[in-house]
Amino acid sequence: MSSSPSVSDTYIATDRTVPTRIRKHASYDCELVHSILDAGYLCHLGFVRDGAPVVLPTLYARVGERLYAHGSTGSRPLRDAGQDAGLAVCLTVTHMDGIVLARSAVHHAINYRCVIVHGVARQVTEPTERAAALAALIEHIVPGRAADSCPADARELAATAVIALDLREVSAKVRAGGPNDDPEDLALPHWAGVLPVVRTYGQPAPADDLDPAITVPGYLSAR
Amino acid sequence: MSSSPSVSDTYIATDRTVPTRIRKHASYDCELVHSILDAGYLCHLGFVRDGAPVVLPTLYARVGERLYAHGSTGSRPLRDAGQDAGLAVCLTVTHMDGIVLARSAVHHAINYRCVIVHGVARQVTEPTERAAALAALIEHIVPGRAADSCPADARELAATAVIALDLREVSAKVRAGGPNDDPEDLALPHWAGVLPVVRTYGQPAPADDLDPAITVPGYLSAR
Repeated sequence: MSSSPSVSDTYIATDRTVPTRIRKHASYDCELVHSILDAGYLCHLGFVRDGAPVVLPTLYARVGERLYAHGSTGSRPLRDAGQDAGLAVCLTVTHMDGIVLARSAVHHAINYRCVIVHGVARQVTEPTERAAALAALIEHIVPGRAADSCPADARELAATAVIALDLREVSAKVRAGGPNDDPEDLALPHWAGVLPVVRTYGQPAPADDLDPAITVPGYLSAR
Repeated sequence: MSSSPSVSDTYIATDRTVPTRIRKHASYDCELVHSILDAGYLCHLGFVRDGAPVVLPTLYARVGERLYAHGSTGSRPLRDAGQDAGLAVCLTVTHMDGIVLARSAVHHAINYRCVIVHGVARQVTEPTERAAALAALIEHIVPGRAADSCPADARELAATAVIALDLREVSAKVRAGGPNDDPEDLALPHWAGVLPVVRTYGQPAPADDLDPAITVPGYLSAR
């Protein structure tokens, strides 16, 4: 495992983590990056296949300065990540926080928190790290669940590929607050402000074949 | 504009829209693809820069068989899309619908609806199509808003790049329903089922400088 920088640390900006515009939205602060990554579990993983881009939704978890994702050993990107050179990827996590309505059409915007990670993903082959990564993936999505489910057996582990991506070339982008209308538009008769976007959870729905004696566990009902 | 296929039509599957695994989740049905695209407004746009993948969150809108996205004329991908060859992209839209908890750790999954579009994005230069695309972007995110905001003026239009991506090489992937535990795991003492994930909207928050006489419009309070 790579060592974890202290919370006051920042990632080093590189050519590809510095945006060409609106640089004020970009940050390299480790604590901010971690908080955005830990607030979600679905990322969009980009890679190049036959010279063309591919973007797939994928689950991930953070352990220190490393992200893990998993999938079938048969999937193309995970097979590619098993090659010596690894797989060049861009992993992006975006949370939508609000729709920003400005008086002027072009100043409409989205409030969001986003992390973009560039790097080379590699398959994790070491058994202890693989098992820890799979537990982290479940625990990250549903804290408390890893201990309350049946761990993967040897056959299942063999069919599951785990990839790791280190947090080295990383940036966060955050847009928050109200609309930025031009001064001459402030008197226009249109409502302006923010419509908050919120992710919530519904009532847990038991599986059809669940023993009715098994009640919803506390780690679910608390959400 | 490209013509719109009838709702019974399907997109033609290609090498890169047929998944290597879990093919039962893939669909090429136009109506399904449209419904998934129309249920969202944030996509993840992937492209290749200096041989490496880049994935950026971007707003989009669908008009018939064409998607539009916009950004500053200064942004790198939008500049690239203005070149003769256009910009090879993969545009992915994912809605998360639930967390699927199985008795067995490896059968945990996400219920989701996803559309993946491969193609070449091009800058829209024709003024009528540009204006229509910008209106569609606002209207797609907040129906009713295009008519209740100040349209872009010539200076703003000049600073805004619009890209178009035709829906030709497209697939949808959908996972729904409960957990798929192996028969031998059904008697395990762990809760199993689905935790629904829902996107909701909060109370609209007016801008600090909004005239208090302007009340929340009906198209917002209805959400």
